[in-house]
Amino acid sequence: MRLATLLLAACLLPAQGVAAETRIPPSALDTAAQLRERALADGTAWQVLESLTTEIGPRLAGSEADARAVAWAQAKLRELGYDKVWIEPVTFPTWERRGESAEVLGAHAQPLVVTALGGSPGGTVEGEVVRFESLEALRAAPEGSLAGKIAFVDQPMERAHDGSNYGKAGPVRSRGPSEAIRKGAVGFLMRSLGTTRHRVVNTGLTRFEEGLEPIPSAAVALPDADQLARLLRRGPVRVRLALDCGWTGADYTSHNVIGEITGREASEEVVLIGGHLDSWDLGTGAVDDASGIAITMAAGHLIGQLPQRPRRTIRVVAFANEEQGLIGAREYARRHSGEVANHVIGAESDFGAGRIYGFDASAPESAQAAVRDIAAALAPLGIEYMPGEGGPGPDIIPLATIGGAWAWLGQDGSRYFDLHHNADDTIDQVDPADLAQNVAAYTVFAWLAAEAEGGFGSAARAMQGANE
Amino acid sequence: MRLATLLLAACLLPAQGVAAETRIPPSALDTAAQLRERALADGTAWQVLESLTTEIGPRLAGSEADARAVAWAQAKLRELGYDKVWIEPVTFPTWERRGESAEVLGAHAQPLVVTALGGSPGGTVEGEVVRFESLEALRAAPEGSLAGKIAFVDQPMERAHDGSNYGKAGPVRSRGPSEAIRKGAVGFLMRSLGTTRHRVVNTGLTRFEEGLEPIPSAAVALPDADQLARLLRRGPVRVRLALDCGWTGADYTSHNVIGEITGREASEEVVLIGGHLDSWDLGTGAVDDASGIAITMAAGHLIGQLPQRPRRTIRVVAFANEEQGLIGAREYARRHSGEVANHVIGAESDFGAGRIYGFDASAPESAQAAVRDIAAALAPLGIEYMPGEGGPGPDIIPLATIGGAWAWLGQDGSRYFDLHHNADDTIDQVDPADLAQNVAAYTVFAWLAAEAEGGFGSAARAMQGANE
Repeated sequence: MRLATLLLAACLLPAQGVAAETRIPPSALDTAAQLRERALADGTAWQVLESLTTEIGPRLAGSEADARAVAWAQAKLRELGYDKVWIEPVTFPTWERRGESAEVLGAHAQPLVVTALGGSPGGTVEGEVVRFESLEALRAAPEGSLAGKIAFVDQPMERAHDGSNYGKAGPVRSRGPSEAIRKGAVGFLMRSLGTTRHRVVNTGLTRFEEGLEPIPSAAVALPDADQLARLLRRGPVRVRLALDCGWTGADYTSHNVIGEITGREASEEVVLIGGHLDSWDLGTGAVDDASGIAITMAAGHLIGQLPQRPRRTIRVVAFANEEQGLIGAREYARRHSGEVANHVIGAESDFGAGRIYGFDASAPESAQAAVRDIAAALAPLGIEYMPGEGGPGPDIIPLATIGGAWAWLGQDGSRYFDLHHNADDTIDQVDPADLAQNVAAYTVFAWLAAEAEGGFGSAARAMQGANE
Repeated sequence: MRLATLLLAACLLPAQGVAAETRIPPSALDTAAQLRERALADGTAWQVLESLTTEIGPRLAGSEADARAVAWAQAKLRELGYDKVWIEPVTFPTWERRGESAEVLGAHAQPLVVTALGGSPGGTVEGEVVRFESLEALRAAPEGSLAGKIAFVDQPMERAHDGSNYGKAGPVRSRGPSEAIRKGAVGFLMRSLGTTRHRVVNTGLTRFEEGLEPIPSAAVALPDADQLARLLRRGPVRVRLALDCGWTGADYTSHNVIGEITGREASEEVVLIGGHLDSWDLGTGAVDDASGIAITMAAGHLIGQLPQRPRRTIRVVAFANEEQGLIGAREYARRHSGEVANHVIGAESDFGAGRIYGFDASAPESAQAAVRDIAAALAPLGIEYMPGEGGPGPDIIPLATIGGAWAWLGQDGSRYFDLHHNADDTIDQVDPADLAQNVAAYTVFAWLAAEAEGGFGSAARAMQGANE
């Protein structure tokens, strides 16, 4: 999941208009109850998760594994009985991590566990560390005051169930390096944007503002951040940061991979669910986002197992390169911008594999009853209807920005930032029962949205802001 | 803590002889109760732990940090008011870790999190992986059957509170590489000798048997071991293992660091407590064994704060290079072999910082009442007298082997192998209250042993088996 997603969420309510009441046929609700129970007992998502994380492993956008993942996703959708499977190209610049290390120099010489931020240039820098308790404190430092020094933003990230912690601490990663450059720093270190006390480090994309000369920028494991703080209480600390990484200068073409369970009546009307296929490189991307891929591929598969196809089409999208800027999702929205009204509603699973606790959807008055029906069908899974609480998943944002309706199936992210973007993001950390609960929720949601008579408010509006 | 220690324990009961009954004066028991409460409220051990792990950090025997640790220990003992502080040289060969990586090759290409076993040679090897469920299974493989291959022993280590898991699984590390060489393997991988599901790997010493050509040998994090097993279920797996490490060929002279609270009456009679000063290089050696250093330095310090010195001398020893073969302890025993009878009793803290739950001591019949008195003074700390359950700490073994009496203050090691020899062995993982309970126990024990009238059975016997 990328930064800023959650902050954007509340703003993206589609245009409302007068329309006939959307309704869900009672027979569809009966089927939903059966699908819910079937999904809870079904092992498909676990098998998909195991397959992707084992056979492909880490799949950094633009890496050799990216192409393998695209081939894997097509094969898996076919194996799961999808009616149509295709790919759509997505082109972007490539960033590579080749090596990284950091060490305290001098009387307390010792290594630090670090990882380069995505987008960081390579290079070896050495300098005195200046610690800031927050990004605000760095911003408040006098211009030029960090000349020849390494800025260290030691801002903690609290544990939270809803991702609000990421919204608060995230700007340290996205904005911190540029702020440090403005003050004259030669390198940037930050307390890892995570909640784990283990010595794994959360990477993630940073951006350097136009006109600034990028500097080597890395995150430090929490125990190492605290170690730096302890050392700094004893006196000046010099650190050498050596990163071998960077943008290669070459473009890469990956693909959004798309599978459909084709609707029996209104095949051009699409309920879109999905996740993103790429991951960061340190773990095997189990919670970010093989789980989302697995949950939604399994949901479509379960619906495809019914005696007849749903009224509308269920489209599962495995988005390319979410991690470096929703690049696949933006391309999807661009390519399908003429079909927004036919994208009846969209939901992405991209916040791990914790249990879903809340449901919300953008919907005009005319679809409120249908949304409540869906919420009622989710309630036996322990999911509460929380109007006004949710927002679109990251890869749904570009579509929502041009008028697509969205649903939010809010996952418990309490443990998400123990794993997010770090080496511990492996299948070991996923609970199969929680994963199955997610599948049940997505299956029920997608099925009912596909069976609904009437829409959820999608209507094309001018392309804007899709560059999030 | 080193392997095999626990297995040796039960054998080392000193020679018994007819002697006057050892007794502890009632006034000493009163003081013990005061010391116990004082220790529980005292922050010295935490400060020592913080100082060693922060200022020195990892301190691999023979590394630059080894010398810094020796200087640190002397300064710290002086700062804590020890009456005498000195060092005794210990010479040994040096092993270095410079870099390490492993990757699955081919259709499922991905990195594996590994660490070289201490003592491994460097080198890059590539071969098909052959998995064995246990060391026994590797032993049963036909001679030559692993020619050109990489042996992978995937034997799990159970969680246990008493270290029995290490006794069972430990031979995989100590014997596995030699077994693999005999079968023709070019490389050796083993499931990390740990209980953590995080992607940190437990290192530790291995030995190659005489006449065998050592091969690169490494441990694999538990999630990566499971990943390898999953990949192997899909077909052959080739791995490249690249280790840059090895014995340098140069000897290094470190030191045992010794501090004494000098006895008021029988200063030549010594109650020895201690830990080891060296650590592996991946963490900062907080539980292995800065905690032991901190606990015993604090215990001596608290006794030194009393209005008068104890009857006998309290000697705190920070042993050199425990990790590579009890090298400091063996040198201590060699150098002091003429003073065994004066080493009244010895106890080492080297099993982390978990709460002490059991107490035992080697003692002839004549000292049983005194041992029971000590046990009774420990009981308010939740410590049970467990005759026959304990054994000497690793660095006490060489002394015990030549007749020294020992005590066992058994720590709860349930979480020890989450941290032992891996990057997570940092101060973050230590509970200050548990640490203080340890200090209270060592303080009470050392005080009462020093005040006891009569011995605990120490008597010189011929030097033997001190090569553990």
